[in-house]
Amino acid sequence: MRDFSQDLSQLSINTATVRKQWPLDRIIDECARRGIRAIAPWRDQVAAVGLDAIARQLRSTGTRLSGYCRGGFFPAKDATGLRAALDDNRRALDEAKTLDAPCLVLVVGSLPGALDGQPAHRDIARARAEVRDGIAATLEHARSLGLPLAIEPLHPMQAAERACINTLEQALDLCDELDPARSGALGVAVDLYHVWWDPKLAQQIARAGRERLLAFHVCDWLTPTRDLLNDRGMMGDGVIELQRARAWMEAAGYAGHAEVEIFSDHWWAQPGGLVLDTCIERYRTVV
Amino acid sequence: MRDFSQDLSQLSINTATVRKQWPLDRIIDECARRGIRAIAPWRDQVAAVGLDAIARQLRSTGTRLSGYCRGGFFPAKDATGLRAALDDNRRALDEAKTLDAPCLVLVVGSLPGALDGQPAHRDIARARAEVRDGIAATLEHARSLGLPLAIEPLHPMQAAERACINTLEQALDLCDELDPARSGALGVAVDLYHVWWDPKLAQQIARAGRERLLAFHVCDWLTPTRDLLNDRGMMGDGVIELQRARAWMEAAGYAGHAEVEIFSDHWWAQPGGLVLDTCIERYRTVV
Repeated sequence: MRDFSQDLSQLSINTATVRKQWPLDRIIDECARRGIRAIAPWRDQVAAVGLDAIARQLRSTGTRLSGYCRGGFFPAKDATGLRAALDDNRRALDEAKTLDAPCLVLVVGSLPGALDGQPAHRDIARARAEVRDGIAATLEHARSLGLPLAIEPLHPMQAAERACINTLEQALDLCDELDPARSGALGVAVDLYHVWWDPKLAQQIARAGRERLLAFHVCDWLTPTRDLLNDRGMMGDGVIELQRARAWMEAAGYAGHAEVEIFSDHWWAQPGGLVLDTCIERYRTVV
Repeated sequence: MRDFSQDLSQLSINTATVRKQWPLDRIIDECARRGIRAIAPWRDQVAAVGLDAIARQLRSTGTRLSGYCRGGFFPAKDATGLRAALDDNRRALDEAKTLDAPCLVLVVGSLPGALDGQPAHRDIARARAEVRDGIAATLEHARSLGLPLAIEPLHPMQAAERACINTLEQALDLCDELDPARSGALGVAVDLYHVWWDPKLAQQIARAGRERLLAFHVCDWLTPTRDLLNDRGMMGDGVIELQRARAWMEAAGYAGHAEVEIFSDHWWAQPGGLVLDTCIERYRTVV
């Protein structure tokens, strides 16, 4: 297993982790001056500063991306909504290309309207079929750009609102269906917060293999967890066996970044510098 | 599929649903006078009134059990704790026998201490091994009493604190290991709140079959869900396709009760009679 204690070369910060503290240009500078050489930004953060400005700043600071957040949310209430979702995913891919991202992360969506508390229907099988079709359609553009799609299985507690793909096995079944040649154009983002509980995690990481393992996200699961969305823990503060899971990833051939992604009202209330410094310390010691 | 609109013969009330409103003897009377002929009580509720008194009241009111809650919580910090857990499960089985329960529901436990926010370790694989051994040891007493054990897979958001068995597939793998003959002594409790999201739900219900399908619990998943434990919805108020899932259960041979189990700060704050009347109405129309 790679030694993370000596340098920060494999650390990436998902910029949602300090999104309440700073705009993206400040985040990039704060990361760069600490020796953090990779980030995973969100589209709204990029848009707030400007795509071209961010692309220039990434180059000037020598900052790479570990992924771009995000595409997905394919299911919609009607055909017009489905087309709009496909168009939006094409634009996300184009932005990811401009930023030289290694993959576009897909939060695939689920019951349309559920995120606003008004699900248009309850047919999760229909949502899953629409996700399959949406990824298939988006995959063509992704191949043409050489920009892989990374399906992120989300925790089952997000199954109604954010993603109807909820296990690594389910995501990999879809990869096998849509990219049987394992071309590298389609794979998964393994976020331990979402999948740590899965009794088939080790088996499915091994199944995924190098071609399908496109991203690796870390944080921690707190006991108790007080909120379904914004109570993620800092690595080392919870119950996820981070190093065991990283060993599985690397045994399967993964050689990319460990991306820290913490949605947390607690950490959003801390000074941004403290959050980044803590991420660095925990990356060295417990990831 | 059975017609639930005409009579209440297949309705059971898990007594946690109105535990804040009434003690168990009152719950039994309130159910009986509404024509509800089955309940699933919790051990603490039984103990508060007295085991023999409850057994007599069940007989005098013609009330049957759809299950007894609960055994489990096998993993412990040390060998003394493990032995205590096994002893407690024997007592739970004896109580279930006294009450003529059709099964003892197992919430199997997970990381010891996590429920109190102080996990003794983070090794969920160890917890899973201890659960397997604990069920194996308990199964002997269960067989001698003719009292089946029903493993309840809990939602992955409860994986750290309450149950490290989190999918129906995982529970059935354990059934196959410990009771390969499908003797009926070991099976599962399918609580749709915990498993509704599972892309393999239909497949695994079919796999379980009549011998393994020992209980069927219903409520609903709300969007948004505001609490990981006590924000379950009344049937019809959320996104679970209850009738579709019941059809899968019945196609697999299940012919038992639909047990309403709602942990909800909202419903606990309503008058108990209103809660039971609403359960009856929803049982007739959406379950």
